Formats: sequence, structure tokens, C-alpha cells
Amino acid sequence: MNKTRLEAFSDGVIAIIITIMVLEIKIPHEATMQALLALTPVFISYVLSFLMVAIYWGNHHHLLHTVRHVTPKIIWANMGLLFSLSLVPFTTGWMGENHFAELTVALYAVNHLFCGFMAFLLQNAILDHLTEKNKLMEAILKTKKKSMITVAIYLVAIPVAFYYPVVSVALIGVSAVMWAIPDKNVERALMEAEE
Amino acid sequence: MNKTRLEAFSDGVIAIIITIMVLEIKIPHEATMQALLALTPVFISYVLSFLMVAIYWGNHHHLLHTVRHVTPKIIWANMGLLFSLSLVPFTTGWMGENHFAELTVALYAVNHLFCGFMAFLLQNAILDHLTEKNKLMEAILKTKKKSMITVAIYLVAIPVAFYYPVVSVALIGVSAVMWAIPDKNVERALMEAEE
Amino acid sequence: MNKTRLEAFSDGVIAIIITIMVLEIKIPHEATMQALLALTPVFISYVLSFLMVAIYWGNHHHLLHTVRHVTPKIIWANMGLLFSLSLVPFTTGWMGENHFAELTVALYAVNHLFCGFMAFLLQNAILDHLTEKNKLMEAILKTKKKSMITVAIYLVAIPVAFYYPVVSVALIGVSAVMWAIPDKNVERALMEAEE
Amino acid sequence: MNKTRLEAFSDGVIAIIITIMVLEIKIPHEATMQALLALTPVFISYVLSFLMVAIYWGNHHHLLHTVRHVTPKIIWANMGLLFSLSLVPFTTGWMGENHFAELTVALYAVNHLFCGFMAFLLQNAILDHLTEKNKLMEAILKTKKKSMITVAIYLVAIPVAFYYPVVSVALIGVSAVMWAIPDKNVERALMEAEE
Repeated sequence: MNKTRLEAFSDGVIAIIITIMVLEIKIPHEATMQALLALTPVFISYVLSFLMVAIYWGNHHHLLHTVRHVTPKIIWANMGLLFSLSLVPFTTGWMGENHFAELTVALYAVNHLFCGFMAFLLQNAILDHLTEKNKLMEAILKTKKKSMITVAIYLVAIPVAFYYPVVSVALIGVSAVMWAIPDKNVERALMEAEE
Repeated sequence: MNKTRLEAFSDGVIAIIITIMVLEIKIPHEATMQALLALTPVFISYVLSFLMVAIYWGNHHHLLHTVRHVTPKIIWANMGLLFSLSLVPFTTGWMGENHFAELTVALYAVNHLFCGFMAFLLQNAILDHLTEKNKLMEAILKTKKKSMITVAIYLVAIPVAFYYPVVSVALIGVSAVMWAIPDKNVERALMEAEE
Repeated sequence: MNKTRLEAFSDGVIAIIITIMVLEIKIPHEATMQALLALTPVFISYVLSFLMVAIYWGNHHHLLHTVRHVTPKIIWANMGLLFSLSLVPFTTGWMGENHFAELTVALYAVNHLFCGFMAFLLQNAILDHLTEKNKLMEAILKTKKKSMITVAIYLVAIPVAFYYPVVSVALIGVSAVMWAIPDKNVERALMEAEE
Repeated sequence: MNKTRLEAFSDGVIAIIITIMVLEIKIPHEATMQALLALTPVFISYVLSFLMVAIYWGNHHHLLHTVRHVTPKIIWANMGLLFSLSLVPFTTGWMGENHFAELTVALYAVNHLFCGFMAFLLQNAILDHLTEKNKLMEAILKTKKKSMITVAIYLVAIPVAFYYPVVSVALIGVSAVMWAIPDKNVERALMEAEE
């Protein structure tokens, strides 16, 4: 019961975050191709953030799947993750509207790093209370290498943003695509858990 | 469990999309009939898109009904559909605010086409993993003819938009009404599935 | 299953409608009591509409409670109700921002009438498919008198709005309060249905 | 069933409230550190309100956990709580945009007091219908002392806001942190209820 409501609330918040971002794509007053094309950076930012939030939703889903008892620590780590994700529409909009200006890309990368850190805290809070062996959690832990590469990418993307912001955005894009590719171990563990 | 959360998340996103569109109907500062009537194109666009998103919700519902195991492919096809639907408030607002200007109607039709394509990918992703015979899916597949007519309508509506935008909107309206009429086969299969 | 998703979707849409209305209370730039008090008509409109949407949510809940099979007719009547409710943030905002100007109050009353009509269609669509006797539905039908009084109030409120808009708003307020008072028969039927 | 829908609706509304607050952090047009730092008061207000709404969500969750029959009284007390929470994005935005000006902080404290009062009404409405002994409710009632301290803090924070607004905000922050620390008794009762 407890867990169902935590999932429902998180789903609600994530669904709203992913959808209100589109409100930052301000409708142009002219009906010209030029006006539409001027939105390209805003649109690219939106696509990237949609992808990123979608990935967090999927991973969140897997993490919560392994939970038995919802502890206060899990609730607060989850709130921390939702909070950092709630800043994504802001950092996305700022980056898009300012055509990937240095500082805005750096902040966007910081936001990603912050989200990743909160997801890490959530994972640890869940691990703390896993009494029995759990194949799904084991599979999630095997993605550690991928997590560390991602953190490294963000840590590089932040300073790079001040010199080559486009490279920085590309790096974040690569890390997103990396997570969008489903992990075989996690999938197998999920399949088994369902059976 | 898995499927429930996918449905809940999709429901959340679709519910938000269908509702935030109303925010694009900007409240006029004057309390006159003239100011109200000036919103007619925005309102018509809203009605059309509300109908369209409602239809997608219904069809999405039927499609997901046939799913047993949620695969990564299904998740990503579903995300693609939600992404393309999330652009509807933007294309609707642009079209309405610019009184069905040529380019805006064309983009609106492209958005419809894109949503239809994503729904098609979702259907295929689901079909890939249907091991047993499924009456509901069979009924859905029988709507193929309707799907092809719809695609044809959109493909015609895009170029037509540049010459007779109103005709183009009317065509999209017709295709929406076509889908709003419930399909006897799908209904029967749903009834049977419930029993 | 079917019904659960219809409820979930409706809950989502109603929750969003009731919450985005607050976005119409534009934050004043001055931190003065005068700026705050200038929002009084907007705030009163918000309170009234919050109450009204909350009542619809409760009644919707009761109506859906009696449903066994979700038919296409029920889905579309429900969509019609959600559509008319989705216009409430707009009509509320227009009325509030224009300090209960004649036309805006009339439109607000029309919106109420429209919502009532859609709820009536939904009730009929549900009645069509009730095969067995249903205590809850019987109790709901006993509220017919209240429904007719409400419709009469709205029908009076529309023309009155053009002469005494404040009286019109007061009438709508009275009808809302009338519905906010729980109906003994419905409550008893709900209690019994749960046991 | 009844209760599930009340929870789902409340979760939806709270999820939207907590998320649309971020829309009040207006995206600056310049990509400078100065423009970003100018948002500090808005950001601090957001963090405080996010924390506060998150706490209400958790406590709401616990309260509802003890409910057996959803009575009209519970529904309306719950609506009252949701209504007062729905004003938080407004009072938060006003306070943030005006850099913690006296009046805005006072109103923010009033909003907190109002939410607390509604939560108190909800608790009483639930207590009215608890027939059997309930460990969780007993644990919740043991937090009475904390509730009274909180009310006292708000009552002090309102007048203090007119002289030292920052002290007032700090007081509210302290009360939030006080509630964010999980209550041992409530946790134990929840654990036992689950077993």
C-alpha cells in the first residue's frame, strides 16, 4: 500500500515535470518558418530533457520494484530526486532560450549531476533495507560502471560548457542514449521477478 | 505491476497534455463579446485536439490491454507516442493563435502523422511479444483499413494546408470523428475479455 | 480494469483542472495590501470554482461507482464532462479578472449549465447499461429534484448576469453549497455498497 | 475503493501543486550569473515550500492510512486541506518575487497556519469514525505536542514578519525541518500495520 502510493506520487510528479516542459516552448506570434526554426535550440533542449526524465522514470521504476518496506530514508531520498528533477524544466528552458550559452549549459550539467546524486542516495536507502538477496537489485548494482561513466561525463561536461558548450550538450546526450539502451541483466531480472 | 505503472504514467501524461492545452486559450482583458469571439479559432483548435488526444487515450488503453510483459521496446515506443502527443499543445496553440495560417495547419497535420506513426510503432512492439492468440489484438488489427485511410488523410492534409488550410483542418476533423465512432469488433473483444 | 483506468484518467484531469486554476491568480509585483486586495474578485472566483469542481469530482465518483461495463457511450459522455470542466479555469479567470463583469458571469453560468448537461448525459449512459437494481443509482436518481433546481438556477443566472451580475454569482454559489451538503440517501447507499 | 480514489485524487493534486511551483521560477532572459543569482529568494522560497508540501504529503498519507470508511466530513476536510495547499504556489511566488517583503512573509505564514488548521480538521474528521483502537492513529496523536509547537511558531511568525521577515522565514523553516525528521512512534506503528 505504502509503496503503491509512493510510486503513484512519484509517477504523478514525473509525468507533470515531463509535460510542463513543453510550456517553455513559447508559441511564436508569427506563422512563419523562420519563427518556427528560431525555436530549434528550445526544441533540442526539450527532446534531450524528455529523454532524460523518461530514463529516470524507467530506472526509478526498477529501483522501487526492489523495495519491500518504505522507510523514511527512502521517502526523503525519493523527494530529493523529485526535487532535483523538478528543476529540469527551469534549467532546460534557460539553456534553450539562451541558445546553449556557456553558463546555461554548465547549470544544465550540474542539474544532471544533482539528479544522479539523488538517485544514488535513493539506491543506497533502498539497499539499506534489503534483507534478502534480490536479483533485480544485483542487476541494478551491475550498472555501477555505467553510473560512474555517467558521473565522469557530467563532471567533464561542466567545465567544458564554459569553452565548448555544444560539446558539453553532446556529452550529456551521449550519456542519455547510453541509459536509453536497455540493460540485458536488468531486463532478465525483471522478467524473472514477474514470473 | 509493471504494466500498471506504465498505464498510470501514460494516463498522467495524457491527462496533463489534454488539460494544459486550455492554458493556451489566453484570457482576454476585455469583458466584451468581441474579445470572446476573437478566440474562436483558438477554441476550435482546442476542441479538435481535445477530441484527438481523447481518442489516443482510448486506443492506447485498448492496445495496453493486450500486453502481458512490458518490454523495453514497448516502453520506448510508448515514450515516443507520449513525446509526440506532448507537442500537440504547442502545435494546437500555434495554429489557433495564427487563425489557421497555412504553415501552422501543415505542422499540425505533421504532428498528427507523427503521433500516428508512434502509435503504429507501439502496436508493433506489442505484437512482437504476443505469444498466444488475442481476440482484442485481432480486432485492433482489423482497424488497419481505418489506420491507412487516416494516414492517407494526413498525407493529403499536409500539402493541402498550404493552399486551403481550412480544408486541411476539416480533413483532420473528419479523421478524428472517424475514430471517435467506436469499433464494433474492438468493443465486442473488450467485452469478452472482461468476462 | 477498464473502469479503473477511466477513473484514474478522470481523476488526473480533474486534479489538474482544480490546480491549474490557481495559476490564474497572477502574482502581483508589489508587496502591498492594496495589490493583494485587488485580487479579491479573482480569489472569490477561484474559491467558487474549486468548490464546484470538487463537487463534480465527488458526484463523478458516485456515478462511476455504479458502473459495471464501461461502454463507448460512457467513455464519450465522460470525455464531454471533462471537456466542459476543462473550460472552467478559463471562464473562472475571465470572470475574476474582469471583476464579475456582466458577460463574463453569464459565460460562467453557461459553463456550469454545460457541465451539468454533460453530467446528465453521463448518468443516462450509465443507466442504459445497469442491468440489475442498484441502490446507489436509485439514491442518485432521487437527487433529481436537486438537479432540476440547479438547472433552473443556472437558467435564471444567465439572463440575470446581464443586469445584476453579483446576484447571478450568488445564485451559482447557493447551488454549489446545496450540492456540497452530503445527501443522506447517497451516503447510506455508499455505506451499504461497501459492506 | 472509495479510499483509494480519495488518495489518488489527493496525490494528483499534491503532485501538481509541488510541481507547478517551479513555473514561478521565471526563466531569466540573460545567460549571466547575475541573472541566476537574482533568483536566489525565489529559489529559497521554492525549496521551503517543496519541503513543506512534501511533509504534508507524508502526513496525509499516514492519516489516510487509518481511515476505514470515507465519510463526507473526511472528503470535505480533505478538500479544505487541498484548497489551502493549492494557495502555496501563489504565496510562495509572491514572497520570492518580492524578496521576503514583510507582508508577503506574513501571508506565507498565514497560509501555513491555514494548512495546519485544515490538517487538524481532517484528523478530527477521521478520529470521529475510528471505531476500534488504532496504533497508527495513537502514534499520530502523540505528535500533538509537535503540532502545538508548530502552531505557536506560525502564530509568532505572522507578527514577527512585519519587523524581521527573515527571522519569520527562518522560524517556518525550523518548523518544517522539525516535521521532516521522521517520528519513531509513527514509523513503528506503520511497520506493525504492514505486518
